[in-house]
Amino acid sequence: MFKMILLTVLFLSGFCINCYFCAAIRDEAPQCGYQSCHPLKDGFINIHLVPHTHDDVGWLKTVDEYYYGANNSIQNAGVQYIIDSVIDELKKDTNRRFIYVETAFFWKWWIHQDDYVKHQVKTFINNGQLEFIGGGWTMNDEAATHYQSTIDQMTWGLRKLNDTFGECGRPKIGWQIDPFGHSREMASIFAQLGFDGLFLGRIDYQDKEKRFTSKTPEMVWKGSANLEKADIFTGVLYNNYAPPRGFCFDILCEDEPLVDDKRSPLYNIERKVDDFFAYLKNASETYTTPNVLLTMGEDFNYQDAHTWFKNLDKLIYYANLRQANGSKYNLIYSTPSCYLKAVHDANQKFVEKTDDFFPYSSDGNSFWTGYFTSRPTLKRFERQANNFLQVCKQVYALDDLGPEDWVDLNSLREAMGIMQHHDAITGTEKQHVADDYARILQEGINECQFIVNSALSEIITGENNTDPEPAPKIAINSCWFTNISSCPYTESQDNFVVTVYNPLSRPVIKYVRLPVLGEAYSVSDPKGNDIEVQLIPIADPILKIPGRESKATVDLIFVAEEIPPLGFKSYSVTKQDGNMISKPEDITEITSGDGVVGFGLDPQTGLLNRVIMNEQAIPISQEFLFYEGNVGNNEVPTNRSSGAYIFRPIPGKNATAVADKVDFSVYRGNILSEVHQVFDDWVSQIIRIYNKEKLIEFDWLVGPIPDKDVNGKEIITRFTTELSTNSVFYTDSNGREILKRVRNSRPTWTLNLQEPVAGNYYPITSKITLVDEAKDLQLSVLTDRAQGGSSLRDGELELMVHRNCLHDDAFGVAEALVETAFGAGLVARGSHYLVLGPHANTTGDVSTSAQERDIAQRKILDSWVLISSPYNDTKYLKQYSGLKRSLPNNVQILTLEPWKGFSFLLRLEHILEKGEDPKLSQPAVIDLRNLFGPFEILDIRETTLAGNQWLDQNERLEFQTVDDSGRKSGKRAAVIQALDDYQITLNPMQIRTFVIEIQKN
Amino acid sequence: MFKMILLTVLFLSGFCINCYFCAAIRDEAPQCGYQSCHPLKDGFINIHLVPHTHDDVGWLKTVDEYYYGANNSIQNAGVQYIIDSVIDELKKDTNRRFIYVETAFFWKWWIHQDDYVKHQVKTFINNGQLEFIGGGWTMNDEAATHYQSTIDQMTWGLRKLNDTFGECGRPKIGWQIDPFGHSREMASIFAQLGFDGLFLGRIDYQDKEKRFTSKTPEMVWKGSANLEKADIFTGVLYNNYAPPRGFCFDILCEDEPLVDDKRSPLYNIERKVDDFFAYLKNASETYTTPNVLLTMGEDFNYQDAHTWFKNLDKLIYYANLRQANGSKYNLIYSTPSCYLKAVHDANQKFVEKTDDFFPYSSDGNSFWTGYFTSRPTLKRFERQANNFLQVCKQVYALDDLGPEDWVDLNSLREAMGIMQHHDAITGTEKQHVADDYARILQEGINECQFIVNSALSEIITGENNTDPEPAPKIAINSCWFTNISSCPYTESQDNFVVTVYNPLSRPVIKYVRLPVLGEAYSVSDPKGNDIEVQLIPIADPILKIPGRESKATVDLIFVAEEIPPLGFKSYSVTKQDGNMISKPEDITEITSGDGVVGFGLDPQTGLLNRVIMNEQAIPISQEFLFYEGNVGNNEVPTNRSSGAYIFRPIPGKNATAVADKVDFSVYRGNILSEVHQVFDDWVSQIIRIYNKEKLIEFDWLVGPIPDKDVNGKEIITRFTTELSTNSVFYTDSNGREILKRVRNSRPTWTLNLQEPVAGNYYPITSKITLVDEAKDLQLSVLTDRAQGGSSLRDGELELMVHRNCLHDDAFGVAEALVETAFGAGLVARGSHYLVLGPHANTTGDVSTSAQERDIAQRKILDSWVLISSPYNDTKYLKQYSGLKRSLPNNVQILTLEPWKGFSFLLRLEHILEKGEDPKLSQPAVIDLRNLFGPFEILDIRETTLAGNQWLDQNERLEFQTVDDSGRKSGKRAAVIQALDDYQITLNPMQIRTFVIEIQKN
Repeated sequence: MFKMILLTVLFLSGFCINCYFCAAIRDEAPQCGYQSCHPLKDGFINIHLVPHTHDDVGWLKTVDEYYYGANNSIQNAGVQYIIDSVIDELKKDTNRRFIYVETAFFWKWWIHQDDYVKHQVKTFINNGQLEFIGGGWTMNDEAATHYQSTIDQMTWGLRKLNDTFGECGRPKIGWQIDPFGHSREMASIFAQLGFDGLFLGRIDYQDKEKRFTSKTPEMVWKGSANLEKADIFTGVLYNNYAPPRGFCFDILCEDEPLVDDKRSPLYNIERKVDDFFAYLKNASETYTTPNVLLTMGEDFNYQDAHTWFKNLDKLIYYANLRQANGSKYNLIYSTPSCYLKAVHDANQKFVEKTDDFFPYSSDGNSFWTGYFTSRPTLKRFERQANNFLQVCKQVYALDDLGPEDWVDLNSLREAMGIMQHHDAITGTEKQHVADDYARILQEGINECQFIVNSALSEIITGENNTDPEPAPKIAINSCWFTNISSCPYTESQDNFVVTVYNPLSRPVIKYVRLPVLGEAYSVSDPKGNDIEVQLIPIADPILKIPGRESKATVDLIFVAEEIPPLGFKSYSVTKQDGNMISKPEDITEITSGDGVVGFGLDPQTGLLNRVIMNEQAIPISQEFLFYEGNVGNNEVPTNRSSGAYIFRPIPGKNATAVADKVDFSVYRGNILSEVHQVFDDWVSQIIRIYNKEKLIEFDWLVGPIPDKDVNGKEIITRFTTELSTNSVFYTDSNGREILKRVRNSRPTWTLNLQEPVAGNYYPITSKITLVDEAKDLQLSVLTDRAQGGSSLRDGELELMVHRNCLHDDAFGVAEALVETAFGAGLVARGSHYLVLGPHANTTGDVSTSAQERDIAQRKILDSWVLISSPYNDTKYLKQYSGLKRSLPNNVQILTLEPWKGFSFLLRLEHILEKGEDPKLSQPAVIDLRNLFGPFEILDIRETTLAGNQWLDQNERLEFQTVDDSGRKSGKRAAVIQALDDYQITLNPMQIRTFVIEIQKN
Repeated sequence: MFKMILLTVLFLSGFCINCYFCAAIRDEAPQCGYQSCHPLKDGFINIHLVPHTHDDVGWLKTVDEYYYGANNSIQNAGVQYIIDSVIDELKKDTNRRFIYVETAFFWKWWIHQDDYVKHQVKTFINNGQLEFIGGGWTMNDEAATHYQSTIDQMTWGLRKLNDTFGECGRPKIGWQIDPFGHSREMASIFAQLGFDGLFLGRIDYQDKEKRFTSKTPEMVWKGSANLEKADIFTGVLYNNYAPPRGFCFDILCEDEPLVDDKRSPLYNIERKVDDFFAYLKNASETYTTPNVLLTMGEDFNYQDAHTWFKNLDKLIYYANLRQANGSKYNLIYSTPSCYLKAVHDANQKFVEKTDDFFPYSSDGNSFWTGYFTSRPTLKRFERQANNFLQVCKQVYALDDLGPEDWVDLNSLREAMGIMQHHDAITGTEKQHVADDYARILQEGINECQFIVNSALSEIITGENNTDPEPAPKIAINSCWFTNISSCPYTESQDNFVVTVYNPLSRPVIKYVRLPVLGEAYSVSDPKGNDIEVQLIPIADPILKIPGRESKATVDLIFVAEEIPPLGFKSYSVTKQDGNMISKPEDITEITSGDGVVGFGLDPQTGLLNRVIMNEQAIPISQEFLFYEGNVGNNEVPTNRSSGAYIFRPIPGKNATAVADKVDFSVYRGNILSEVHQVFDDWVSQIIRIYNKEKLIEFDWLVGPIPDKDVNGKEIITRFTTELSTNSVFYTDSNGREILKRVRNSRPTWTLNLQEPVAGNYYPITSKITLVDEAKDLQLSVLTDRAQGGSSLRDGELELMVHRNCLHDDAFGVAEALVETAFGAGLVARGSHYLVLGPHANTTGDVSTSAQERDIAQRKILDSWVLISSPYNDTKYLKQYSGLKRSLPNNVQILTLEPWKGFSFLLRLEHILEKGEDPKLSQPAVIDLRNLFGPFEILDIRETTLAGNQWLDQNERLEFQTVDDSGRKSGKRAAVIQALDDYQITLNPMQIRTFVIEIQKN
């Protein structure tokens, strides 16, 4: 089947590398973007009316419910009708403008249109009437998302637009009008996408107040402490993304229509223009240039676009008539691009910003920090799906599967795009929507499982399938239920092959852990040599997880060492007689074989009391506690409930410990050792060390959360040390750069804080760190998914792992966040990885920070374990490397995926920040020649981050800042690092994106 | 100003009589109406999907609120958007169809369109995609409306369509889908309009059950017992006017959209087609031909027409795909016309119907008979406005005011059109809407007051104003506050002129009654002779009506005799010294001077106990009682509340008498005598006889209705006699033909009656009659507005005059019907006219029924009293007749109004039914030559009732009936009575309509 598609696509497309970004076929020369803006009027305040719709890719309804307009009793919203009707309205008057943002919806619509409609749409795109803004598959969240998936989803959305509409379909503006806080990494990504500006809807109410009163709602945001090209003009919208009160003309709104018939008792045009001007007066005084952007739309507006445009036409006409009487307002249909261009051309200087916009509070008691943790299992599922998607892309590219086809890979690409949406991974959707997200993700995974199966089967057997509907020679499966220590494939066979695929660009070690039924196993490596195995009982609380039907009570563990980069090793597992299962031991000090890593337990309580690592040893305690979510009526801020968005513990009430004392049992072994702790019947944990890893794993299991009390419970794990941290802690930004946080403080305004807990919570996408500079100590906890976290007292850090909110927080979801499964409260399981080491110095080769980078990468792109039935063909490959040589440890192939025709998209990233490690934070040089095993690179050309424009063709608008006279964002960011042949240089935190044309070997 | 308009209009129009009905200018030959229907499929059941919107011309919102889409918090509805969006959708596919019904809204929309849109609309009308159905200014009520106003409103709506769109804009179908019961007169009117069929939405649930199970929902309705051409095919719709459950695709609905993408979890197209077919099976078994009409729309649907059409397209496509698998359903876009044509062509025979569809009950406890009386003052105001509109039209035509202009006369024409709407005159609108109707009516009246003032001033002074903005020489005003016995013009002047205009075609007598401040007056007739006057104190309760600020305590009364047809007499009134005010007398027998008419009071109770008239004398009592409206929760029918629509007294509870004994005072005089009765502080009455009238007037005053009880009060006047009536009584149909009613019975099905009071109520537009055949007695009570009435026991009749419903009845209004004014409950005042006489025989010249016809006419088109300051120019006309000779007493000019250019619309009517009077029920012959004073008729051509088609060009579809083999409706009805020169013959109840081309004398 793959071969058929290959031929068909080639025949139809005839792509060559240089015409990827040719404009789509069109009838006339495009006059889009800045060329298509309505002229400004000198001496007037130009009011940019931006008709727009905000279409959540799932929230109260599922993606398809929103698209089709089903289940309207929940919310009257049907995206198919929105785009249909906007197109009809744009036809009527070329002055009208509209922006569309969410490519997931647009694409679903586009593929159902006939040629006539498609031609019309292209006309509107080419004349600037319809402009794509943002353009990612969704408007992604910025707190719980990982940068890899954000880049992927932007790439996928922008690619669809680019392929279809060419230059005029290429967004230039970031449009993050609804996400609940904004990460600095996202600003950096937008800059690297080549965007000219970014607009935000929601920022902290105190921040907003200050910016609005100091005329600084617009700024140049420096998105990176490492990159030179990460600055972007950023504007905070005047009214989030809503129209002025009284001027919502949507069919869903109840504002007065404009009535200009003087004979009607409803005649109101003069009064309405007066009202509008009063609003304009306030708005125009907030901004520095004689331009104001007004968002004329709301959630799922424009289903009946006509009601909007008919009234906007009247508003513009009658408001501008007042110019004859001295009005200085000039209303125009506009877009964010046209507004930005007007602001740019006004030649003002703007303030700089170097921090981020977290946490977001909409009032003194409503900190949107609950969603950092809401729906923890969905957040983890998304991370696993990303891991698998990258594996899938790689093996698709490495095998001779040919160019991208139109279904299989896209299914998970699109599912992951959807998951990035700011009501998906955030956990702020209704339950049935969360269920549907899981369904979508699972369908994508199923497709990728087929790809992985096919590709690896071909690589292993060396036989390409030419049958149109081939059955892969080898049936390869993934263990998707290891979260409940279950795997049907390992549990049902006495003999099986374990293939461990490493998606990283360097060799890695992988501790393979498989639930089995037997009591003794042998494992042989690719060379046929038996390797060490260990069998440990599965912890009792795991066996009791509701819904778990597995008969496995034991985990089989072995170490896959030196798995090749972009490659795999296969191991044969055979059940043996005897009983190798570890027995518990009566000890409280657990160390690795070499004693390098270890921890101690308090013999009385069974709780952690000490850790050893990197030649450091510190006292430390770890415990589980819960906050009780406030129950309010949401009528005033001080009565806010804790809910899906909002974290609000009962004011003044501290977290309660789940247990002061735990039952525990210790298992030691040559591969790993672990302690099984039971805190309560709903909280347990395994603390684990690996003999060849510098980390301590905390494998926690929480749930079903008791829900019989009045208040919900929000469960944290808290690590308490004696580190002197001086109110400071560090958190990552979308898994990438590290930001300094100061408790009870914000970098750009004097904080008035009424919520001392929730107001100090930050999104922890991958890591939270404490530093004691005096002791030169650094303690980090890495996560396996996004969570909320903080350091509420010096030396202490906490992460929220699970939450149960018995009340809605009245920000729209209208459901309490009470997750259930199998008739009980949902159980969540996950891992924290604790790393301790010196802060400034290094021990051995690498700094503690560099160790953490390594671990983080190996967790986000974990080696993927695949199970197949045993095979004995000696010709079959048991070890494989997609790379002929490993890349340096500070560089990773962020993306390798089939692109178009015989080309791939290749992204290289430097994974360290400046100063994190004396060696690894240096620039790295990669030679791409003769690097990939299965193919040669024939041609290479660098693009912007999303691969939708040649980098040397990307020019950005320049904006001056007041902070640094003469310093400008813009052009600077577009500086292209010359390609020295195939030698690619990467500076710290740099990501470089290439389209490579390849020839299969 | 009038002259200017005259010249302008002539210049622009250049109308000639024969091209009135030319098709509107168009680009291609029209293929509308029956020619434009989608072909039927033989051997299939053809499913006629009729996309439609039902747009109430005011109900929960005012007319303008509905048009503009204002006040959407009450109801999401904006007609401007409906028509806009339907036009957009029709563009997309010529297969699509839409019908529009309410010309009031369409016209408001049309005049705001540009030429481009108008051209498009004409295209859709000419190709049959857009068809007008009904086409009256509104979809009029059929219970509380008078036939004159119904004809007027149909005429005005159809004229606008005809003038603008020609033949293809001419409706052929009556579409009364929402009115709450259906009158036989309305069927007759539709037949006379030349319509081919009529569709009804609401009929009694028992009637519907019987018709649906006996396959007789379609019938030939014989609309008149007198006319040959009043039959019309009538169909009862399957689901009122709603779409099948689950198939409402409007933006306001919450039904599933059709999803045909198999990849979507929402995919439902097969299941939905199954559901639709299940519905079709039931529907198709109900009707006799292989055609089913399904109404695909609802109240104010199609604001976003796209959601409807997009899904209907899919439904049709996928349902018809099933034909390949043997389905016998063939779905097509259709219209009521196309359905009717299909039914016609199926050549079936249909049952006949000769009664009407009153009262309407939607379930066993919900009789829609409350609205017969709801808002009694608005119902009266509407009647007065009609009276004034006819005066206004006549004087406009009689004076040299020239052809119709575009504002003045139309304002009241359109206001009256709006008032006929089935939520206007019915009183079933919200309070603020009722207020707005009154405003609209008042604005129309103000315009007509200007016309009457100008026209009469010109006639009186003999001077045409040539000044572009002339001030009339004489300021002529009407007394609009005689309902509270107040008139600012007579109260503020000692000398004034009273001009009494008679809109009837024969001379009449008018008892002029004017509130004044003086105690003695002289009145001189047009010849300068003093005539008799009488001054009577205004009854005390009237003086106490809340809001009455008049200082008048006395009514001046004189008789204007022999007022010329379509003419006037002017009387000079001068205040005199002395005191002429009548003093009360201590008597209980009151008779006219000649003793012909009289009544007696019970000396003990003060209540009526006897009447004498037409040589008959009978014992009779009259009293006021009230029903207590049931308070329910409306959750089940048996818990229905009495409300604006529904009359539902507390089950089993009889009406309670307001008083058993009244205070009274008697005033006698040479002109009239009257008794002032006081029943309670909120109910009083004047019983009055005139020396030259054969009637007894009951001038009742009710309110403020006490509202402190749990239950509302619904007040009736009840007349109790000893007549033996055998369960039978008679009520009029829209003021025209008389229908026999039998208590607790229906003519066409066996009645199961759970509401013995409400279920016997009928609409009394003008008259209710009891007959004792044995005694040869006939007792009628005529009303001055529409009311509910009944005869609940033999010899007894009652009329509901006012009602206060403290609870809503849950049929949509969502407001209790509690009317207030000036901070108190609304006071209503009105008159009943009792006539007693022999039933079969005649006394003197005319039958009792003919007397009643005369009175009814003189009340509906009362002589209009106009007041002006005194003038002494002897050349001024004090007497004037528009007719050179009176018409016979059985004929009336129903309509004389300026039409177009130099043409008028003239309607003549025979005002008696067959057999009502030996002489007057004979055919009448009118000679139009040399009849009108101010103009000559140059040409005359007969039209259909609405004047929108030459009668000889009207062909109707013929339908056979099973009752009368070979008898057909249709062609027969289009038989044209040849015009014998200018001799017009009128048979009983016949109305003939002509366009006359005139030349001013």
